Order: sequence, then structure tokens, then C-alpha cells
Amino acid sequence: MFKVLKTEGRARRGEFACAHGTVQTPVFMNVGTQGAIKGGVSAHDLKELKCQVELSNTYHLHLRPGDRLIHNMGGLHKFMNWDKPILTDSGGFQVFSLSSLRKITEAGVHFASHIDGKRIFMGPEESMQIQSNLASTIAMAFDECVENPAPYDYVKQSSERTIRWLVRCKTEMARLNSLPETINKKQMLFGINQGGTYDDLRVENMKQIAELDLDGYAIGGLAVGEETEIMYHIIDVVEPHMPTHKPRYLMGVGTPCNILEAVHRGVDFFDCVMPSRNARHGNLFTWHGKINLCNEKYAEDPRPFDSGCGCPACRNYSRSYVRHLIKAKEAVGMHLAVTHNLYFYNELTEKIREALDGGYFESFYQKYRNILGERLQD
Amino acid sequence: MFKVLKTEGRARRGEFACAHGTVQTPVFMNVGTQGAIKGGVSAHDLKELKCQVELSNTYHLHLRPGDRLIHNMGGLHKFMNWDKPILTDSGGFQVFSLSSLRKITEAGVHFASHIDGKRIFMGPEESMQIQSNLASTIAMAFDECVENPAPYDYVKQSSERTIRWLVRCKTEMARLNSLPETINKKQMLFGINQGGTYDDLRVENMKQIAELDLDGYAIGGLAVGEETEIMYHIIDVVEPHMPTHKPRYLMGVGTPCNILEAVHRGVDFFDCVMPSRNARHGNLFTWHGKINLCNEKYAEDPRPFDSGCGCPACRNYSRSYVRHLIKAKEAVGMHLAVTHNLYFYNELTEKIREALDGGYFESFYQKYRNILGERLQD
Repeated sequence: MFKVLKTEGRARRGEFACAHGTVQTPVFMNVGTQGAIKGGVSAHDLKELKCQVELSNTYHLHLRPGDRLIHNMGGLHKFMNWDKPILTDSGGFQVFSLSSLRKITEAGVHFASHIDGKRIFMGPEESMQIQSNLASTIAMAFDECVENPAPYDYVKQSSERTIRWLVRCKTEMARLNSLPETINKKQMLFGINQGGTYDDLRVENMKQIAELDLDGYAIGGLAVGEETEIMYHIIDVVEPHMPTHKPRYLMGVGTPCNILEAVHRGVDFFDCVMPSRNARHGNLFTWHGKINLCNEKYAEDPRPFDSGCGCPACRNYSRSYVRHLIKAKEAVGMHLAVTHNLYFYNELTEKIREALDGGYFESFYQKYRNILGERLQD
Repeated sequence: MFKVLKTEGRARRGEFACAHGTVQTPVFMNVGTQGAIKGGVSAHDLKELKCQVELSNTYHLHLRPGDRLIHNMGGLHKFMNWDKPILTDSGGFQVFSLSSLRKITEAGVHFASHIDGKRIFMGPEESMQIQSNLASTIAMAFDECVENPAPYDYVKQSSERTIRWLVRCKTEMARLNSLPETINKKQMLFGINQGGTYDDLRVENMKQIAELDLDGYAIGGLAVGEETEIMYHIIDVVEPHMPTHKPRYLMGVGTPCNILEAVHRGVDFFDCVMPSRNARHGNLFTWHGKINLCNEKYAEDPRPFDSGCGCPACRNYSRSYVRHLIKAKEAVGMHLAVTHNLYFYNELTEKIREALDGGYFESFYQKYRNILGERLQD
């Protein structure tokens, strides 16, 4: 259950109680697509990085190692040795972005696995069944994620179908949560707002799904091709129609600035592959701006990435050393860089929470909204 | 300085005092070629894996990031944040195995970098200068490592030249250790016995280098194509001519059984890429035999790799989970597997030391000499 502890403007400081503990919001969820964080970060490491929620992927885990196997091993928590909350996305996004030969019908989607081309069908019921086998804390509804921009008529038709799918997800989850063999009988369901970049479709969609009284609401279909200003505009348009007593999750977003801006607009949950993906190419976030470690000027720089940072990489290693490791393609270089960026994102939301608790979020927001996106000058 | 604390048969329990602490022998040195252990293992992790000595590579670090850079950063210890002993191999092996367009003269070797084809010259003096810049605890002499089998006349000529190179290494190191800008003025030099698979050449070479009163003696040019029995035979032939009060290092060897057999024949130091290389393909060592984690039978196996093992991987994760990670090519899978194998090797030499201390090495040897090489039956 979600409780708003405090607000400042539209920004919310909250607490979300679920089957695997209580999540302090705003929160950044750390993406471990295949049941593991990219960059060689283990579940054990995640705890040191202040991670509150791990996010895994229904589509990937269904294909490999298979959700039945994970069910047999006692669910994803036991499989990964992670006892805090896990959110699983529904597979919708990956079915539409990774697989080939898609055919969408009212029933669901026929597609070919990106691993071996195997023909697979996934609809709302199948997605819920897989997520029930994974036994995640929060399951996401099965939706169609439309690329931006897309024609009005297609988006309208698609987002209406996604609502019908959501109703089926809710029914199927209720059934699954009542079965004796279900591992997490308290699994929660978040619905996903769609509607592309069309204000009226977004609002209509949001109003309808709000009536379903779900455990949380996500804004999906953003950060998929549109301009950042359009993304902020859609949040501004949708947010007034989101239930205030339910958590709000902006899917797949984004840069530290995007997160700050979205919190300022009333969002509570985030996830993004950016911290780990950028890190693997030497792009690091610091409290004074971004750095690209591959830059020649860091070759003999004995300082940590960010001198104020308490992450395991900054506590122990220099820019010079990690730069060498990344250029030499040593796995530990990527590991240290990913470690730092995840810690940075988790600390960012921690500092946002502290600012909200202390009643100075607005000045925090004004101070960092530009700095975080700029390149570090040193 | 090396002290033999105890012997049992030809096996020796010793202590080696050097600039960065005291090494308990027999010891397995953990290979971090480019200043990092493969599989995303950091210097910080190494301590948890009971590693006593880290081994880095002169050739690789000279090419990238450059030994001058590492010197400017305060030496390899500071660069890697590793305060225990480091041994650097001389680059000889890599010059002969990795680079192309080699031309050997009395002065040294002209070759082309395997990274960018750049023409480089390395002789005994250059190798010592690079290792002095790296400021390792122990430098290895610059040698030619001949593939087995090779013609008698070539091996004879080559090993005689390697002795002349060794004399030049010793002279150059003495000069470097006396310079004010040298970071580790107590750097030690190990000579390398060569002579291919020819008993008389091996013995003659060993006798000559023993007279140079070096800090330690390695047997090189083994595990490079010859049968295992020939390797054991060469150790048996050379060992009686190695100074008893100096450490003995069998380079690049080998399996757990090879190590046990070589300790039984009087060897003190080991290094090998096998634990990390095998781990990356799911091949793990246990106290009950080897396992290949990719085998289907481990797909739903909830047990750790080795139920008696105290490594971070075995304490936290199942065969099933790590098998999935390795098959999905997740870096953390390789990390956990490498972690286990390195811990196993370090624990193997620890248990060998305990057996020597307790006076039961012979029965330990008889018990494990076969088990360790077999496939685990479970």
C-alpha cells in the first residue's frame, strides 16, 4: 500500500509497502534484465549500492532460463538471492522492440524469439502466468508500446486494446494469486498508461485505467523516440488524472535530469538501463556533471570519478586506473563504472527524498536541474 | 629472503619475505595480465579470495596503458590499489607467443605489437626498465621461451643466449634499484631455467644460473606443448640442481593435480590462467572433482558449486542460477565462476601448506592426486 508522507509542489515523498518490504519513494529501480545487473554486479553488490528494487524482464526470463525453471527453483527472489522487492515488466516492450515477425490480435501477440527464432504466443494471461511463476513483488500489465510518433488512429485503437488487455491481466492475476502453488500470493499489478503523444488519448486512457483501482500506475510509451519536452508535456497532461494515493512509475526514464524533472511533476518510481549502459562506455555521472572517462585528459588523473562519492569504485580506484581497464576491455573496468553509476542514481533519489523530507526540494531541484546534465569542467 | 620451514619428502613449506610482506609457500599467484584479473575481479575482491601474490604482465602493460604512465601514477601497487606482493613476468613469453614479425638478435627482440602492429624492441635492459617502472615486488628475467619440441641445436643456442641475457638483467636491475626515481628499490630478480625437453641442456642451464645467486629460480618453457609426464620428468631432472634456500617457481602451471605433483617434487611458486579461463566456460574445480556447469543436469540444481566451499559464490548462489548467467552471457556469471576457481586454487595451496605443517602431506597428496582431476559424480 502506498502512503504519501509529504508533498512539495507536485513532488511527492512516499512509502510503498509490499510483500518484500517497504520502498521509500521517489525510487530508482535497478535493471537486471535477465536476473542479473549488466556489468557483473551481483545481488550481493546491489545492497552495497543502496538499491531498493530490482527490475527483471518477463520476456527475457521466459525465453531463458524459462519461468517454469525459476518457479521450480522457488521464484526469482530465491533464484537470484535477492530478498527485497522485484518488479517484473510484462514483456510487452520487448515483444515489440526485440522480437521479429510480430502479429498482434485481440488475443495477444505471436512473435519469434530473438534468441533462436522459436514461435511464441504471449497475451495478457500468458504474461501474468509468467510473472506469477517468477513470483515478483510487482507485475506490470501486458501492453503494446507504440513508437513515437505514430498515427492517431493506430494509437487510439492500440491503447483501447491495451485497456481491454489490462482488464484481462487483473482477472488473471486474481486467479493466479488464489492458486495453492503460487509462490507470491500477494503479487501486485501496475497498469500502464498509453496514448502516444496525443493529449486526449493519454487522458482518456488514464481516466479509464484509474477506475480499475490497481496497485500502481505507470506512464509507458515515453522515451521511445519523442523529444524530451514532449515527454515532460505528456507527464504534465496525464498526472492530474492519476490517483494521488497510488504510486506513479515513469517507465524506462532516464537521465538524472529527467528523473529530477519527473519527480518535480509528481512521479515516484523510475527505471532505466542508462546508468549501466553509459558506464560500459566510460560515461559516468557525478554531482558536478558528466564525465567521459575515455577522454585523454583522465589518463593520469589520480582522483576518484567523484571525490564526494562513497561508492566502492570511488573509495578504491582512480580515474586513471579505471580508464585503462575500460580501454583494455577488462571486465572489472566496466564493473567499477557500472557500480558507480548505479550508486549515483540510487543516491540521487535518496537525496531527492532527503530534500523532500527537509522541505527544500525546490531549491535542490533548481540547483541540480542544469548541473547534472552538463559536462564536468575539471 | 626465503626460509624453508619444513620439508616432507621433496615438498617444502616455506616463507618468502619481500618488500610487500611475507608470502607463505607453496603459493599460487593470481594472474591479472593487464593489471586486472579476468572475470571482473577487483584487487579488493582478491583479498577475499585469499590471494597472496598478484601477477601482471610486462608486455601487456608496456603496450597499454604504458609503464611510464604507471610509474607516474606511483607504480602498479598504487595504480591497482593492491598492497601485497606483485610479480611481473618479463614479457619474454608474450613477445614469442602473441606478437608477430619477431626478429631475435643477441641484443634482444624486434617485434610488432599485437594491438596495433607498432614496431617495438625489447631486450633484457628494456624488460628490466619496464618492470622497474611498474615497481613490482619480483621481476622476472627476460628469456626466450621455446615451444616444445624444438631442435636440440636451437634450444642449446637459445638457452645459452638466455643466460647471457640473465646476466644483463641482473646488472641492469642493480643499476635501476640504485636510482633515486625508482619506486621499489628492493625489487627482486628471479632467473628462468630453459633447455626445452633436453635433460642435459636443462641441467647445464640450471647449474649456470644457480651461480648467479638470484632471489629465486623459475622453471620456464614447460606446459608449452609437451606431455604432462615430460613436464614432471624435467622437474625431476632440474630440481636437484636448484638452490635449496631459494624459492622455486614453475611458470604457467597448471591443473590442481599438476600443482600437487609439482609441490611433491619440490616446487614453491605457481601461476596459471587456467582457473579464470576455465571458469569463463563454466568449468569449475571442486574438492570432489571437476564440473561443467553448462551440463543440462545442473539446470535445476539448487546446490552451490561445492557444498564445502567458503567462497563468495558458493556462499550465496546456486549451480542453477550461475549456469543460467553463464549461458545468458551475463558478466556476473563469469565473475562468480572465476571467483570460485581462484578461491579454490588459493585454498588448494593453503591446504597443502597445512598438510606440510601438520606432517601429513604425503597422505594428502595420495588422497587428492586422482580425485582433483576427475569429473564430479553427483
